[in-house]
Amino acid sequence: MNTRIKDLKYFFSPESIAIIGASGKFNSISGKPLYFLKEHGYKGNVYPVNPKYDELVGFKCYKSIIDVPESVDLVLMAVNYKLVLPMLKQCVRNGVKYVTIFASGFAESGEEGKILQEQIAKLAKETGIGICGPNCQGSVSLKDKAIGGFSASLGVKPLHFGPIGYVTQSGALGYSIFSLAQDSGVGFSYVASTGNEVDLHTLDFMEFMLEDPDTKMIIIYLEGIKNGKQFVRLADRALQLGKPIVALKVGRSEIGQKAASSHTASLTGSDAVCDAFFRQKGIIRVNDIENMIDIAALMQRIPELPEGKGIGLITTSGGAGILMADEATEIELDIPEMEADSREAIMEVIPPYGSPLNPVDVTAQVINEAEDFMKVLKIMLDHPKIHALVIVITQITGESGKQMAEDIVKMSRLYVKPIAVAWTTGDRLVGDNLKILTQGGVQYYKSPVRAVQAMGALMKYSDFRKNVLSRVKTDFNDSDEGKACLLATSFLADKEHNLTEHQGKELLALYDIPVTKEEIATSEGHAVSIGESIGYPLAMKINSPDILHKTEAGGLKLNIKNKNELVSAYHEVLKNAGNYNPKAHINGVLVQEMVSGGTEVIVGINNDPQFGPTIMFGLGGVFVEILKDVSLRIAPITREEAFEMIEEIKGYKILAGARGKAKADIKAIADVLVKVSRLAIDLEDQICELDINPLLVLHEGEGVRVADALVIKK
Amino acid sequence: MNTRIKDLKYFFSPESIAIIGASGKFNSISGKPLYFLKEHGYKGNVYPVNPKYDELVGFKCYKSIIDVPESVDLVLMAVNYKLVLPMLKQCVRNGVKYVTIFASGFAESGEEGKILQEQIAKLAKETGIGICGPNCQGSVSLKDKAIGGFSASLGVKPLHFGPIGYVTQSGALGYSIFSLAQDSGVGFSYVASTGNEVDLHTLDFMEFMLEDPDTKMIIIYLEGIKNGKQFVRLADRALQLGKPIVALKVGRSEIGQKAASSHTASLTGSDAVCDAFFRQKGIIRVNDIENMIDIAALMQRIPELPEGKGIGLITTSGGAGILMADEATEIELDIPEMEADSREAIMEVIPPYGSPLNPVDVTAQVINEAEDFMKVLKIMLDHPKIHALVIVITQITGESGKQMAEDIVKMSRLYVKPIAVAWTTGDRLVGDNLKILTQGGVQYYKSPVRAVQAMGALMKYSDFRKNVLSRVKTDFNDSDEGKACLLATSFLADKEHNLTEHQGKELLALYDIPVTKEEIATSEGHAVSIGESIGYPLAMKINSPDILHKTEAGGLKLNIKNKNELVSAYHEVLKNAGNYNPKAHINGVLVQEMVSGGTEVIVGINNDPQFGPTIMFGLGGVFVEILKDVSLRIAPITREEAFEMIEEIKGYKILAGARGKAKADIKAIADVLVKVSRLAIDLEDQICELDINPLLVLHEGEGVRVADALVIKK
Repeated sequence: MNTRIKDLKYFFSPESIAIIGASGKFNSISGKPLYFLKEHGYKGNVYPVNPKYDELVGFKCYKSIIDVPESVDLVLMAVNYKLVLPMLKQCVRNGVKYVTIFASGFAESGEEGKILQEQIAKLAKETGIGICGPNCQGSVSLKDKAIGGFSASLGVKPLHFGPIGYVTQSGALGYSIFSLAQDSGVGFSYVASTGNEVDLHTLDFMEFMLEDPDTKMIIIYLEGIKNGKQFVRLADRALQLGKPIVALKVGRSEIGQKAASSHTASLTGSDAVCDAFFRQKGIIRVNDIENMIDIAALMQRIPELPEGKGIGLITTSGGAGILMADEATEIELDIPEMEADSREAIMEVIPPYGSPLNPVDVTAQVINEAEDFMKVLKIMLDHPKIHALVIVITQITGESGKQMAEDIVKMSRLYVKPIAVAWTTGDRLVGDNLKILTQGGVQYYKSPVRAVQAMGALMKYSDFRKNVLSRVKTDFNDSDEGKACLLATSFLADKEHNLTEHQGKELLALYDIPVTKEEIATSEGHAVSIGESIGYPLAMKINSPDILHKTEAGGLKLNIKNKNELVSAYHEVLKNAGNYNPKAHINGVLVQEMVSGGTEVIVGINNDPQFGPTIMFGLGGVFVEILKDVSLRIAPITREEAFEMIEEIKGYKILAGARGKAKADIKAIADVLVKVSRLAIDLEDQICELDINPLLVLHEGEGVRVADALVIKK
Repeated sequence: MNTRIKDLKYFFSPESIAIIGASGKFNSISGKPLYFLKEHGYKGNVYPVNPKYDELVGFKCYKSIIDVPESVDLVLMAVNYKLVLPMLKQCVRNGVKYVTIFASGFAESGEEGKILQEQIAKLAKETGIGICGPNCQGSVSLKDKAIGGFSASLGVKPLHFGPIGYVTQSGALGYSIFSLAQDSGVGFSYVASTGNEVDLHTLDFMEFMLEDPDTKMIIIYLEGIKNGKQFVRLADRALQLGKPIVALKVGRSEIGQKAASSHTASLTGSDAVCDAFFRQKGIIRVNDIENMIDIAALMQRIPELPEGKGIGLITTSGGAGILMADEATEIELDIPEMEADSREAIMEVIPPYGSPLNPVDVTAQVINEAEDFMKVLKIMLDHPKIHALVIVITQITGESGKQMAEDIVKMSRLYVKPIAVAWTTGDRLVGDNLKILTQGGVQYYKSPVRAVQAMGALMKYSDFRKNVLSRVKTDFNDSDEGKACLLATSFLADKEHNLTEHQGKELLALYDIPVTKEEIATSEGHAVSIGESIGYPLAMKINSPDILHKTEAGGLKLNIKNKNELVSAYHEVLKNAGNYNPKAHINGVLVQEMVSGGTEVIVGINNDPQFGPTIMFGLGGVFVEILKDVSLRIAPITREEAFEMIEEIKGYKILAGARGKAKADIKAIADVLVKVSRLAIDLEDQICELDINPLLVLHEGEGVRVADALVIKK
């Protein structure tokens, strides 16, 4: 499969296109692609295939794909679903490289269709022919004018070519987004509608676009992910290249997920895991089509990504400045305040009722002196802590408005720092000034909030990317890693499905994760001698693979202070366990150090069907149970990601030392998270769940201790 | 002041308008209003006033307002700030009713301006002349074409008249919102830009619009509120009338607040209190100008407000359905699932790969049979749990699109249930179909998310309003109320600035709020006898107005189990207090019942400068201290509002009985909240702060107990 991905150039930039089932009806699926190819001036060979015609739209028409005189790069299959399989077989005979199947009637519409779809999948696997769809609206290369789709939005002239790659899992909505984006002037390199993804899927198309030199950003409409690990690799590569990915991922809600599962036969997967993955890899998540278009439009027009998240805000009306400041704060941008020097310089050119802080309120007065406005722009753009500008112009009309628009264009050419404009006035009043901006390559919006959101998304992406790229890679000694993995694998080999608490800790200890001092006592005397060597206070717990709920079974005694208490606890625990489950196999009684004064946190591993092992962190008690206050990442994680996980939870202040308490040993937690994430990857095939609950966190410098652990083998 | 508000008809619908400082320069502030009045055909008398001209734009020009032959309803003052005061005095001589002052240079720009503004305020108070501004862009009545402003957006023709009233505290941003809204087809009844609000302020204008029969909704751009209590009355009246208020309230962030305070000289006040007030009164809060316009546009076009928050979602593409379901869930609408009957009826007319659930995916197929689409619309609109429809049309173009648009218009006339459309395709493709909707009175958007947001805002408003109107008013026995107030006032009269814990509880007890059994012991024997009568376990606390931090002083002993412990605790507490503060005046030792097993919550009163007493509720411990998980309301509150406050906090589950625990006595908390809110109102002038921390909440049916209370007098 992977070898074929390299050949997607035949799919996106085919030298020949055949349309099986082509017709002369311009308004039908079978008619449109032919017209589009003609109208937009596709330069390759075009072969309509339909036994009913000799010629269509000036192209010679063939009875069958087998009759076509060359091996075709891309076939568009515009026939009823029942004809798809036999036609595919003919394509194989012709030596066709890629086929796009438009028809619906497959997995999305019942049992019969599902079987048919499986047959197509099998054929693709066996023959190596590449298939896009079925139940899709096709693909487009805007550079090559290779229109491989039938959406009406492809009939509009001219189609804008540009640096945005676009993959959509919804055909109709997907191409309507395309249409809206084109109307907003967004230019695309390639577009792919993926449908049921019987063979080629979203990530394959994205991988191709990522490596395309003409593509600066990829935007995707996403319902579900087929191969989480491929997405992880792709996202890493995208970060490396500095090509942002913007994802409109739907299915956040239960009803939305339900609706998605009946649409394009897609399994949406866990939204929480997907969201964590996006955060982890700097993928920009949006919840509306307009936000996606806003960001793409800006990316297309700015010379470079902003260098950081310090935003400069300029406005001709105070109100718009407040609006921007509110939004910038909301999305956690920095709004650096101007220093005294800059403030004075700004005050020299704006009226006394303006403001030289950031947001800078130049007031409508500034329009009287074009020079003044330029000076303010210059001061802001020269400021080292400001990485991008958003300028709001409220109601400046006529010549003054024209002057401002021209000045902004001028400055945008002198600086690589990105500039966006919000011109909050109706078109009937300022339409022409907006054209100056557009023609000058400056992106504008009607809403100050949307301007800040779009710029903010790129600023945060860029800031995130710089952080990630600056990180040192190795967080784990590689020789140790290999050793721990080997030991753990052989340790697990002879264990039951559920490990006992003690076994769980033994496993963790192999990864150098600190656990409580403890030993299993098999007699009263043994218990006493273990107890003396660990030191009081102690905890005692029944050790049996058949008793999972130790408290319920009376198999747990805490805070044992001396030998006498230990002896009686030993016997009581055994007796209770016997009463609770007479058939339980008892290994003995665990004698364990009591760690006191620590803060309880929880660390867990889960296996996500799409992304593999994920790691979870949260504070114990109400935080996890009531507030669901947890952070999540795909394993493995770096040390920096571990710190991000810890700082991300709402209850972080408790660890950082709120309410006069001492700071907890956060470094030690991070260390455990990294090691557990490594374990999760090493043992992905052996264990399906791991819960450290609680991990006791002592004061800064004093470390952590695993107090209880639950491990479930696959 | 209030008597004059009734006369705002002279301000908004004046029979005569004079422009002091009028000029012939169309592009200047002094020139524009005259042209606008002429151009839009204002029917009243127009008097330019300027000694330099004899005639302007066809109107006779006067040397001074004193020369104008009638007492003028509205004067637009377009002169430099230095001339404002003398001109105002001339206006008084003429008998002018209202003056709008455009000039800036007042409180917003320094000391000199501030003094000038105070002089204007004084003049307004003394003479009764009504003043709008200064530093504003004026007002408009679109019905009467009385253009009292100079914004360029007022020069556009035609201006759309309609049911939306609009008040803005920002001139430039405000009129640019007006311009954008007009371009979107939103029609206004009245517009007012309020500027520095030296006399007339935002709420005055809102009150007038609220009573105007042509106005169905009021939208406001808000930086700060002058008179919270007036706003409360106004909001209640708006709820009664069923006229929604939409507020773009800025200053959510610290930097935003700072920027606001230097703009239109406005104090933004506490955003949290304002937000609580909006929630309490059903005021729709938006954070962007586009959302405000979206909601106003929808309100203008629907025949009636939706009856509830059950939304029906129809789409021609599955993807858009998911997008809508996600958003509807996010904003907490109901998405009722179709019953078997409806599902079957829908499946009869849509293809097998469609979906008859809600969202209903009719697929693009449905366009082939117009009848089928109408059937689906009818089934959804007839459904009793569906109160409004949002329909997404992705890429249906040409004749089919036209048919759909016409069908939607047809259905929108047969039903009062509101319908909104999202037509997610670029104008180059479907422009004409959108015109059919607009002309048919159906509101459309380009984004499914924005369509759901706008409809959702009205649905939630309507649902909220129905709930509020259905509530029984009296929550407090009026004779008791009066009595408690009298007793409390006299009780407070002789108390120190800080009440002791015991005094605080005595005060609360006057309002029938349950406090711990307790008494002050002044001797060992007294303590013992109090202890025996209350019963063990007990708590003992030093009682001194000079010792606020009892724990720190060692003045607190808990869980006293018997007489011996009581005696030694008595002496220890006294001794510790003496050591801690030898000069402290000691009233004795408080002997108090120990309430065990309760959940700790916090109830507080604060006085907001704008809104007066507010009441706060939260769970004790980390919830308030770390997570700031509190709910807030303006006092007084009803019992239902008390329940809303309790349910609103994130930790509510703990009270509702999470983790296998018994449910807490939520009714008893609500009872305390209502009574405390009453106390807050009664004693607004006597106390500035009250904190019940903790209020111990026992199991359902077992009540609550105030365990500690802090009261600070004014």
